[in-house]
Amino acid sequence: MIAVYGSNGFIGRHLLRRLTQNGVPVRAVSRRFDSEFSSSLGAGAEFVQSDFLQPIAMASSLEGIETVVQLISTSSPGLRNEHTIADIEENVIPHVKFLQACLQAGVKRYIFLSSGGTIYGPHAVVPTPETSTPNPINSHGLTKLIVERYIQMYGHVDGLDYVILRLANPYGPGQIFRKGQGLVPMLLDHWRKRLPIRIFGDGKAMRDYVYIDDVIDAIEAALSLPAGSRAVINIGSGETRSVLEIVEAIEGLTGYVFEREYVGARNTDVDIASLDISLAEKMLGWRPLTSFDIGIRRTVTSAK
Amino acid sequence: MIAVYGSNGFIGRHLLRRLTQNGVPVRAVSRRFDSEFSSSLGAGAEFVQSDFLQPIAMASSLEGIETVVQLISTSSPGLRNEHTIADIEENVIPHVKFLQACLQAGVKRYIFLSSGGTIYGPHAVVPTPETSTPNPINSHGLTKLIVERYIQMYGHVDGLDYVILRLANPYGPGQIFRKGQGLVPMLLDHWRKRLPIRIFGDGKAMRDYVYIDDVIDAIEAALSLPAGSRAVINIGSGETRSVLEIVEAIEGLTGYVFEREYVGARNTDVDIASLDISLAEKMLGWRPLTSFDIGIRRTVTSAK
Repeated sequence: MIAVYGSNGFIGRHLLRRLTQNGVPVRAVSRRFDSEFSSSLGAGAEFVQSDFLQPIAMASSLEGIETVVQLISTSSPGLRNEHTIADIEENVIPHVKFLQACLQAGVKRYIFLSSGGTIYGPHAVVPTPETSTPNPINSHGLTKLIVERYIQMYGHVDGLDYVILRLANPYGPGQIFRKGQGLVPMLLDHWRKRLPIRIFGDGKAMRDYVYIDDVIDAIEAALSLPAGSRAVINIGSGETRSVLEIVEAIEGLTGYVFEREYVGARNTDVDIASLDISLAEKMLGWRPLTSFDIGIRRTVTSAK
Repeated sequence: MIAVYGSNGFIGRHLLRRLTQNGVPVRAVSRRFDSEFSSSLGAGAEFVQSDFLQPIAMASSLEGIETVVQLISTSSPGLRNEHTIADIEENVIPHVKFLQACLQAGVKRYIFLSSGGTIYGPHAVVPTPETSTPNPINSHGLTKLIVERYIQMYGHVDGLDYVILRLANPYGPGQIFRKGQGLVPMLLDHWRKRLPIRIFGDGKAMRDYVYIDDVIDAIEAALSLPAGSRAVINIGSGETRSVLEIVEAIEGLTGYVFEREYVGARNTDVDIASLDISLAEKMLGWRPLTSFDIGIRRTVTSAK
């Protein structure tokens, strides 16, 4: 059976919907539940409430699980590095304990969503292939790198199969606005509330925005890989857009013009994050199918 | 002023001796002291007792320090991965707290001794250059990698200069035998005690053994780099030797034949660790000067 950890988040809900639609039995593990969402899935999913910071509860949620999809993320890409120690204590350590619990429980495969946007750092070639040495400059990206390396260590030493998906910036309907996480949900939130937006630097920082349906396709493809697979794979749109382009796209669709407040660029951000996604096509037979125009239109429509 | 952390260890003592001989003022920081050794250094060194696990004491030891040489290592290369969580809690977290204290105290340069023998992992080209993506398979090497990455993050974001020396297996007079750390001191200990030795696998695992005087030369060269330097540099002998070759070399010098007990190879060890040391020559003007024959002879003589 497949267990999805962090099932109540943006990606988690989309993934659960897809898996249950396809008749795949799945255990949804989350700290909190939304009973309306849960009941919308019908009988295809079983729900377990568990907190990542409680190792014993997490371990008991693994009974009968062959494949773990790990979507829990307690760190945030847009925050400066004040939370460095907390990111180790509340993310790295629980994660390593969870990996040990997975091995004990007989889990065979671990699918982990890493951060393609922050893991490579400022000096990587663009578009960046997976072979580029990661050199993150913020605590979020470093936390993801550390977890990746523990997964790979347990892969080598204890035979755990894994697929690490280094994800670009995902967006789509149902993404919840949280400070420091996600330009698109921030814009939609501030549009609805008629708030000014804050732009770091000149607004020309380039990012790769990948639509949620394409992300879910990639996770499904990772779930279909043969036993014994161990891979690190970039998942992105294959395109980059500036912050200002995203702002203007949403302005065009909503007819609303944001009041812009420009503030200094953060030295924990890179100027460009652009992923080489050719390995994903080769290994997963996957490529992104949703154009930005269609994806952002669906996202704005769902927020109206 | 330079502060040496972990000054009471094998490398720390050799470094303190060299620095005080050269008239370099130095603060020696250690959890414990050996008063005989301390007084042998004369007035050139000041001593501060401090425990790495006590952040406030560590912070106060940094007053007036421009350059930190960080030799403290609480993890051990030869242990399996049972101590993974302890390595994070007792090494990574104190280290990150210490780095934050260094920034607050105005430290300009951080010299860190990393593990050239374990950081690259099993699939690296040999001899391995610094550009090879680290992929350690034991908790010791992974702990070193994580600390490296935090140093580099603070280098990029907060302007800390750093020199990370990825050290091969150091050996020489005065190396203390501790379980799981160092083939040469283990052999000398077991020779004196007339104990049998345990060999993992077939004894043909290749390692790079670098003599302590050469290690100290490399640290001195790193201390002489111009301000603004940020570098990751392999330090090794440029040669590799098998476990059995080391055993036989010591047998030849002592006239004692070890009773060998062969046990299964550990899957947390790599078959070969061989460092490309050309960058060290280019950046530091450093190369190893002590041949293995001379180094091992001096080491055995000092242990008699």
